[in-house]
Amino acid sequence: MAIGAIDCHSHVPAGSPHARTLGDLLGYHYYTELAHSAGMPAEAVDSQRPEMARVPEMVSRLGTIDNTVQYSWLMEAARELFAFRTDTLTPENWTELAQAVTEADKQEGRYRSVLAKARLEKVFLTNAFDEDLADVDRSVFVPCLRTDDLVFGLASGGVRHRLAMKTGVEVDTAGDLQEAVNRLFQYFAQQGAASAAISLPPDFEPVVPDETAAGKALGRAAKGRRLSAGEGRALAAYAFDLVAGACSRFAKPLQLMIGVLRNVYPAGVEGGRDLLSKRGSLVQYADLFRRYPEVTFTVSVLSMTWAHELATFAWIFPNVCPSGHWWYANAPVHIAQELRGRLEATPKVKLIGYYSDMYKVEFGLPKFNMYRRVLARVLAEEFVEPGRMSERQALETARLLLRGNPRRIFGV
Amino acid sequence: MAIGAIDCHSHVPAGSPHARTLGDLLGYHYYTELAHSAGMPAEAVDSQRPEMARVPEMVSRLGTIDNTVQYSWLMEAARELFAFRTDTLTPENWTELAQAVTEADKQEGRYRSVLAKARLEKVFLTNAFDEDLADVDRSVFVPCLRTDDLVFGLASGGVRHRLAMKTGVEVDTAGDLQEAVNRLFQYFAQQGAASAAISLPPDFEPVVPDETAAGKALGRAAKGRRLSAGEGRALAAYAFDLVAGACSRFAKPLQLMIGVLRNVYPAGVEGGRDLLSKRGSLVQYADLFRRYPEVTFTVSVLSMTWAHELATFAWIFPNVCPSGHWWYANAPVHIAQELRGRLEATPKVKLIGYYSDMYKVEFGLPKFNMYRRVLARVLAEEFVEPGRMSERQALETARLLLRGNPRRIFGV
Amino acid sequence: MAIGAIDCHSHVPAGSPHARTLGDLLGYHYYTELAHSAGMPAEAVDSQRPEMARVPEMVSRLGTIDNTVQYSWLMEAARELFAFRTDTLTPENWTELAQAVTEADKQEGRYRSVLAKARLEKVFLTNAFDEDLADVDRSVFVPCLRTDDLVFGLASGGVRHRLAMKTGVEVDTAGDLQEAVNRLFQYFAQQGAASAAISLPPDFEPVVPDETAAGKALGRAAKGRRLSAGEGRALAAYAFDLVAGACSRFAKPLQLMIGVLRNVYPAGVEGGRDLLSKRGSLVQYADLFRRYPEVTFTVSVLSMTWAHELATFAWIFPNVCPSGHWWYANAPVHIAQELRGRLEATPKVKLIGYYSDMYKVEFGLPKFNMYRRVLARVLAEEFVEPGRMSERQALETARLLLRGNPRRIFGV
Repeated sequence: MAIGAIDCHSHVPAGSPHARTLGDLLGYHYYTELAHSAGMPAEAVDSQRPEMARVPEMVSRLGTIDNTVQYSWLMEAARELFAFRTDTLTPENWTELAQAVTEADKQEGRYRSVLAKARLEKVFLTNAFDEDLADVDRSVFVPCLRTDDLVFGLASGGVRHRLAMKTGVEVDTAGDLQEAVNRLFQYFAQQGAASAAISLPPDFEPVVPDETAAGKALGRAAKGRRLSAGEGRALAAYAFDLVAGACSRFAKPLQLMIGVLRNVYPAGVEGGRDLLSKRGSLVQYADLFRRYPEVTFTVSVLSMTWAHELATFAWIFPNVCPSGHWWYANAPVHIAQELRGRLEATPKVKLIGYYSDMYKVEFGLPKFNMYRRVLARVLAEEFVEPGRMSERQALETARLLLRGNPRRIFGV
Repeated sequence: MAIGAIDCHSHVPAGSPHARTLGDLLGYHYYTELAHSAGMPAEAVDSQRPEMARVPEMVSRLGTIDNTVQYSWLMEAARELFAFRTDTLTPENWTELAQAVTEADKQEGRYRSVLAKARLEKVFLTNAFDEDLADVDRSVFVPCLRTDDLVFGLASGGVRHRLAMKTGVEVDTAGDLQEAVNRLFQYFAQQGAASAAISLPPDFEPVVPDETAAGKALGRAAKGRRLSAGEGRALAAYAFDLVAGACSRFAKPLQLMIGVLRNVYPAGVEGGRDLLSKRGSLVQYADLFRRYPEVTFTVSVLSMTWAHELATFAWIFPNVCPSGHWWYANAPVHIAQELRGRLEATPKVKLIGYYSDMYKVEFGLPKFNMYRRVLARVLAEEFVEPGRMSERQALETARLLLRGNPRRIFGV
Repeated sequence: MAIGAIDCHSHVPAGSPHARTLGDLLGYHYYTELAHSAGMPAEAVDSQRPEMARVPEMVSRLGTIDNTVQYSWLMEAARELFAFRTDTLTPENWTELAQAVTEADKQEGRYRSVLAKARLEKVFLTNAFDEDLADVDRSVFVPCLRTDDLVFGLASGGVRHRLAMKTGVEVDTAGDLQEAVNRLFQYFAQQGAASAAISLPPDFEPVVPDETAAGKALGRAAKGRRLSAGEGRALAAYAFDLVAGACSRFAKPLQLMIGVLRNVYPAGVEGGRDLLSKRGSLVQYADLFRRYPEVTFTVSVLSMTWAHELATFAWIFPNVCPSGHWWYANAPVHIAQELRGRLEATPKVKLIGYYSDMYKVEFGLPKFNMYRRVLARVLAEEFVEPGRMSERQALETARLLLRGNPRRIFGV
């Protein structure tokens, strides 16, 4: 039986964790963006269009992307979770799967049985800072504070308003922001949150913050003025440092997801507009890792050109743990390469093997199974066969990466 | 039998497509530059020296480079196209091969039989903008407009003179250049050209053109003045944009070959002086891809550090198609890595598998066969064995990459 | 029997080349830094602590890093050189190995028998410029001048004092420095040194030196003034050029080890504070390679993002030879990738397969054996199986990389 796992990063909505329709599966941005890349107009899957128009459109496009690993996730989920017995999804057979999804939705505790089948013991959420966590099902879900808006969104009146509503603090000064961030962490810690998380552009530098400059920027923003690039950077660096400081005080790991460029292709489908860049270097984070030795940073990088740096920084810095294989790096060829680099030269107790990044629990099964297969193959071919590990040691290592390490590192 | 293929990028001269002597094979820059790198003086293969001196010199050096994939191309061509039965080419046996090449040259339609044996249905040329295309053998060759000189050479009086001779337009203003480029595209389109192509340095940025600045630069160049770096950039950006615009109007794909540094080693042999750099990022092209959504950009990158970016940009941008494995990336280890990255996460209908970049048709056979072997192995080991494709699907995918996609994308 | 090898880069101390205690093995920075990274306080292995406290501390931590290739080196050395029969080193059994090390230390000519078992015919040292080489055992060791201090340390009074003591030249001017460097090379050449070596940060540019600026900087340094960043760069570029010039006059290869960032993690254990960066490009060295065509540069790069550039520069520049797999690139996954890239497209006569970088001779055996295994697998799977080499050719290639090329290139 597959080794049980902890999924330390997902975007599953606590209130609607499983797919209720086939559209919920085919609406995953991987499918819509790949189909669009292969020629489907973006409008064809506009959320304004009725699902009954979008689904057959998507199905008709699958033949252009059936080579991708993402397509294989869909078919493995269909087979394992919906007893779909055909190898391909076509205009002729999709209604059968659609019906199976609708049927399954009626099952009591559907998402829990899906997670059990995927052997996922816990799934972390990525919660907006003003999300209400009261009703989250703690038997399987673990809250996690998403801090993107706090760090990069403070120039927006909307974000500051949401922050004031949630924390009771009107953020006009640097001190206000510190207080607001503190209250958010208090709430999230009380609610059992296991970590904070943030995605970062490739050129971000978490420099020592300048409180005065950040305060000025906040003051200008509060008056509705636009921030210059320099003011924006000063504010982001300050807010980021507040987040890191709060992680220190509340003893929570900070998940750094480094390297995304937002909205590179604005004409794309929803969720399919961001890309990566090979620019930048993990050296930008060295000073952060030195300033906060007591904070565990679990780090994912989006560009494969950063993979070697990540493995070596984790080799040297006690507080840096490589985490999973993120988004554009989440394909077997890249996973195998990152995994070998980490397994060969980083302490095994620091490696967080994988997370799903999924939006619906159904994708946890094929994604984690893909990872389990790559892990099994790397351990077999590179460790057991050359005599560097026994089979027992290889299994124990697999258990650490899938389950033991995330449990210990995140305290779940 | 090998799957038939379209070769969408070569430097085969339409008037002399096949090797007439062994010197034509051994004079390929791969052999002369590798032999020079291993110790042969560059002068030993100077084109001023008689071929009967150059050939034995080259043969005597092959033992230093017989590990390379380039050497294996030579020996496979010798075996398959000239019935050469020995595994190595030596001072003792080379005259036998030399004679076979000379004999083969006498065959009627030699280049067509070579291409047939290589299972190459069409071979694209890379034509200078002032080349006469009237006599090109359209049964196998497809013209393609090389635009390097148009974009980067306009400061040269020689280039502007050739342009005036070909188009009838003396290029003194931005408007003149637009007219000249338009006439070139008209001619090439009439002659059945399938695309334009350009090679680009790693730091090139195809920014929104500044027509005024470009016009000033052209005016200065027309007066014989040297252009500053900034003027050169403004002119190149403008000319590049004209090319992209013409591709749009004439509905031709633009082949971008990104990352070459010219003349890094000026003391090298002819054709063996250029190198690559890992600097730069495909992000430099994002704005171009956004500005011309109707133009298909088939993209090759020279540095392996760009490979992941290319696969992801093709994953998101509908008008970006990864194309082949170029020059310094054209070895099995790099091909396998780029290929897996593309096959696992880019729509299969967008992948142009391979092109030869050859100067004589003989090299099409071993180069495409090398690619076919890498492709077969990747499909077998990473797709069929793990159950992600049936054998039938794998074969169909191979056919798309070798033949179907270039046919559809270039309209041949 | 394993193919004999030349080890062209190590840090073995000529006066104490083999391990006298288990602490000498477990004190290797790989073990202390990995154990620290996995949670051991740096103080636990502070050199002030008695070895009898450090060794059991280290042993108790090995379970956290037993996945690493570094751990496998330790266990292979224990098995092959100390007849240690258990697969793991534990609090229960370590005294047995400790005793075996102490026993072995008593053997006459211990280091020579260790090297013989490793099939290492010669081991290069890395000597400080003021080291006395008279007593070096020339039957196995080859001196090599380390020039880091000469290039990057001249602002320090201590370094200039050591230089004056060794050469008799007080270095106050550019001319003084030239004379001092010349005398050092004379001494090292007389003592049979085979090369000079230097490690370099990723942003270093060996530009054409400015003698006036360097002289001014030296003058300021001689007066005890701090150098600005620009002065430091001018001085380093000048001193580096003197080293390259001396390599030319004395016909010695220069070992360039590119890409290390010093002291990125100052709180780390001794020897475990440096890291790498993916920044920079080998293009920075193109002008150097052009200026000194008569000097052989054997080049290692620390970041895997530089690997492709290195292979291609060695493909084109006759005086650039790729050398081994350095430090953070010295794990099977990276070795295999660099090796394939080099073997497929660089003349085989230019490839220096491997060096140990070791501090005690015991590590030569497992490190070179690791390399031999990777080399055997790459040759078998990528060259012999696909028919690109016969078994005989593969063996001959392996002999060149391990032994023939370093012998010829370094003249030993």
